Amino acid sequence: MTVEQSREKHAATDEAYLLDVADNDVAARMARASGHVRVSARTLELLKDEKVPTSEVLSAARVAGILGAKRTSELLPLCHHLAVSGVTVDLTVGDDDVEIVATVRAMDRAGVSMEALTAVSIAALTVIDMIKESDKGAVITDIRVEAISGGKSGAYSRQRIEDEFPHR
Amino acid sequence: MTVEQSREKHAATDEAYLLDVADNDVAARMARASGHVRVSARTLELLKDEKVPTSEVLSAARVAGILGAKRTSELLPLCHHLAVSGVTVDLTVGDDDVEIVATVRAMDRAGVSMEALTAVSIAALTVIDMIKESDKGAVITDIRVEAISGGKSGAYSRQRIEDEFPHR
Amino acid sequence: MTVEQSREKHAATDEAYLLDVADNDVAARMARASGHVRVSARTLELLKDEKVPTSEVLSAARVAGILGAKRTSELLPLCHHLAVSGVTVDLTVGDDDVEIVATVRAMDRAGVSMEALTAVSIAALTVIDMIKESDKGAVITDIRVEAISGGKSGAYSRQRIEDEFPHR
Amino acid sequence: MTVEQSREKHAATDEAYLLDVADNDVAARMARASGHVRVSARTLELLKDEKVPTSEVLSAARVAGILGAKRTSELLPLCHHLAVSGVTVDLTVGDDDVEIVATVRAMDRAGVSMEALTAVSIAALTVIDMIKESDKGAVITDIRVEAISGGKSGAYSRQRIEDEFPHR
Amino acid sequence: MTVEQSREKHAATDEAYLLDVADNDVAARMARASGHVRVSARTLELLKDEKVPTSEVLSAARVAGILGAKRTSELLPLCHHLAVSGVTVDLTVGDDDVEIVATVRAMDRAGVSMEALTAVSIAALTVIDMIKESDKGAVITDIRVEAISGGKSGAYSRQRIEDEFPHR
Amino acid sequence: MTVEQSREKHAATDEAYLLDVADNDVAARMARASGHVRVSARTLELLKDEKVPTSEVLSAARVAGILGAKRTSELLPLCHHLAVSGVTVDLTVGDDDVEIVATVRAMDRAGVSMEALTAVSIAALTVIDMIKESDKGAVITDIRVEAISGGKSGAYSRQRIEDEFPHR
Repeated sequence: MTVEQSREKHAATDEAYLLDVADNDVAARMARASGHVRVSARTLELLKDEKVPTSEVLSAARVAGILGAKRTSELLPLCHHLAVSGVTVDLTVGDDDVEIVATVRAMDRAGVSMEALTAVSIAALTVIDMIKESDKGAVITDIRVEAISGGKSGAYSRQRIEDEFPHR
Repeated sequence: MTVEQSREKHAATDEAYLLDVADNDVAARMARASGHVRVSARTLELLKDEKVPTSEVLSAARVAGILGAKRTSELLPLCHHLAVSGVTVDLTVGDDDVEIVATVRAMDRAGVSMEALTAVSIAALTVIDMIKESDKGAVITDIRVEAISGGKSGAYSRQRIEDEFPHR
Repeated sequence: MTVEQSREKHAATDEAYLLDVADNDVAARMARASGHVRVSARTLELLKDEKVPTSEVLSAARVAGILGAKRTSELLPLCHHLAVSGVTVDLTVGDDDVEIVATVRAMDRAGVSMEALTAVSIAALTVIDMIKESDKGAVITDIRVEAISGGKSGAYSRQRIEDEFPHR
Repeated sequence: MTVEQSREKHAATDEAYLLDVADNDVAARMARASGHVRVSARTLELLKDEKVPTSEVLSAARVAGILGAKRTSELLPLCHHLAVSGVTVDLTVGDDDVEIVATVRAMDRAGVSMEALTAVSIAALTVIDMIKESDKGAVITDIRVEAISGGKSGAYSRQRIEDEFPHR
Repeated sequence: MTVEQSREKHAATDEAYLLDVADNDVAARMARASGHVRVSARTLELLKDEKVPTSEVLSAARVAGILGAKRTSELLPLCHHLAVSGVTVDLTVGDDDVEIVATVRAMDRAGVSMEALTAVSIAALTVIDMIKESDKGAVITDIRVEAISGGKSGAYSRQRIEDEFPHR
Repeated sequence: MTVEQSREKHAATDEAYLLDVADNDVAARMARASGHVRVSARTLELLKDEKVPTSEVLSAARVAGILGAKRTSELLPLCHHLAVSGVTVDLTVGDDDVEIVATVRAMDRAGVSMEALTAVSIAALTVIDMIKESDKGAVITDIRVEAISGGKSGAYSRQRIEDEFPHR
């Protein structure tokens, strides 16, 4: 059964299944995702200070995000386990929030956008976990794919994504 | 070492550690969190139709969210493994987005707000994973705690959280 | 919300959720399950011989079954993580098959029948995995609960189960 | 050390080990397995009705089976982690039982029969978990490989398996 | 079956099993373990410098050690999953090596010495992983329990351990 | 970004990340690691006796070590998940200690020395877990890489490692 036939069967049966990607080429795949954690002014200050505890929050979130990217297929039922070849998770403390950007690469038969989104999500949750005693109001917002490359339809920037997939 | 001393040591050493909660009472803890997945008008329509595939997306997201709540302590480095006693994950397809609300309960020595936030996050990621081929632009937004109860400082509504923890 | 109300809500909403067991008593729970792996006459002979490799198959299956019992809540979406206090997995090489019996105990608010059934299943799969090169025809059969105790409705033997829950 | 030498060493030392498959070709592998859950007439009726809760049981079991297939190498000590490329888990409510069929595909150096058997087992356990309050007598039965393809010895149907590997 | 009978059965059957600890009291348990990673003089220098990358190695090892402590029961077949209430992992860069000390606390029915030893081991492995490109010769050494408290036989210091359990 | 550029960025940003190995060749990689568990004379005697319980300790440690090798990337934050093709874990009861040697093979883009070290560590921890009631003083020592092959820099024996990476 080819990937196309696999998709057709899916449409016909209306049941969840793991799409067979065996016919796809092994290629260098990349995806970048971003997200934000909105915290209190006080927390932002603490995180901006170059104190060790601050770097410890960001460092723990970075490590958790990397681990999360590698475990995506265990968390999302219909995600393939892919040969993730590299991950970066960058946290930037800005004036209004903590920005998180994750870039994931793999040499495999499917894209890694879910791995990038998962890395951002787990890093964001880790930040909240570590500040929650003094900042219960924190909000995770705007987690989205920024760029994808390596698939058959070519590279996507956020702009191209917005153009082709308008949403509410 | 009491929990208070444990906190003081933490402040002094500036290093990540799992706060000892042994001195806390075993109590019925509850937390509710919410979040939204913004998708295209076309995806919303598909999800609103009472076709099986739709219910399959929501059903898979619900199951993934419940599983995620139970694995929170594996994903977030500084989260205790708690005796989660109950989890509900509700997904509602609205006019503008898919709303996700997760309620987690436990009989244990620490609160379950991270479990509720994790359930929402994993459910949201699962929705995106299942629609991503036709809707690459989807965005996860406004993941936050709505209510907490069972801790020493009494029950929190979102209003009380906003009042006591103003944020940007 | 009490466990009863939780059940009623479940019936009303028709959606999967993790039933809240917070109102249940912490009690000593026990469940025993059994199952069989039907293998070739040749495999049975090899397993009966007191050669090390044989004991290695049974030993690996025992260890895998114990590990499986401890991870039940990760595998079955609607199973609570319970404080499993003890597990035995016994494999007996008989004339017709390999019999597996698992007994699981816990001090917790819910029963452990799923943990016992999972231990048997994983042990059975491990046996098949280790003999599959020379015995592709092996069949796992008759995995069922043999006894339960510690719940509110008293102890169940297989006989009582069969009487109260007749099945096809 | 070639795979053959690896096997010989195994036979000589009589100790469990993960057989080196590095010399095998990367090929499209497929395996199909089936199994049955025998439940009460009442449960069968409930599952046959096209009510949402029913579909929720089957849907949760399907998702759990897919997740189980992907985690096989964590559960079975001597199973390789393979690049699973596709999984389907089909549950059919018949007159006498619930039939489960899982098909697993991979592009890798070893076969996926254990992944298919694990998907069936976890799906069956999930069905039992979700009906156990009203049907404690349920039995899992006849879990077996139905077909294998992609290995050096060619394709196996269940008939060929039965012919070449007669069992008790 | 009491814990004593459970032990006797174990001695009689000679097979691995998870000892039932249901009869033990829930008590505050503590264990401390230590270990060392011997690295090159050059690596020691790098780690001693208060550069961020250094702190990143130690920080990642700390986080990995904490996560490892929480997953001990998944890694060691005969270890109970315990309600770990607190974990600290301290890494000290000395003149000759990196010293790692982990302290684990739990309110549960069994001791946490294996959790402390696992935290040290995983932290040590993480250090080696992060320096291995420039220091392939690193050696993990002297991982051992330093102190235990909370069990029936009272508190153990390393001295008491050495006195009562002389070893080669 | 090539692997070289990836390394440079790492050096510049001083933050933990998963090095991209996509540019490396898929090759047959091998690593061997060893370690020792120092136990009491009495434990050594028990382990040397050809009684089943003994073989059960060694067998459980072997199985746990193999499982540990396969899960290395979940435990060590900056370790890639690799296609492990084979694992052996050998435990030898000597006059002074239990020696553990693990050999791991993979067909992939990165080396497997961490997998071999993890297999040894988990096997050693399992031995200690199973003897700890009668031998609390056990010590894990001298865990180190013995040999590596398959990378760009050619094969390493322990001698070459010692020569090129002198350490304290």
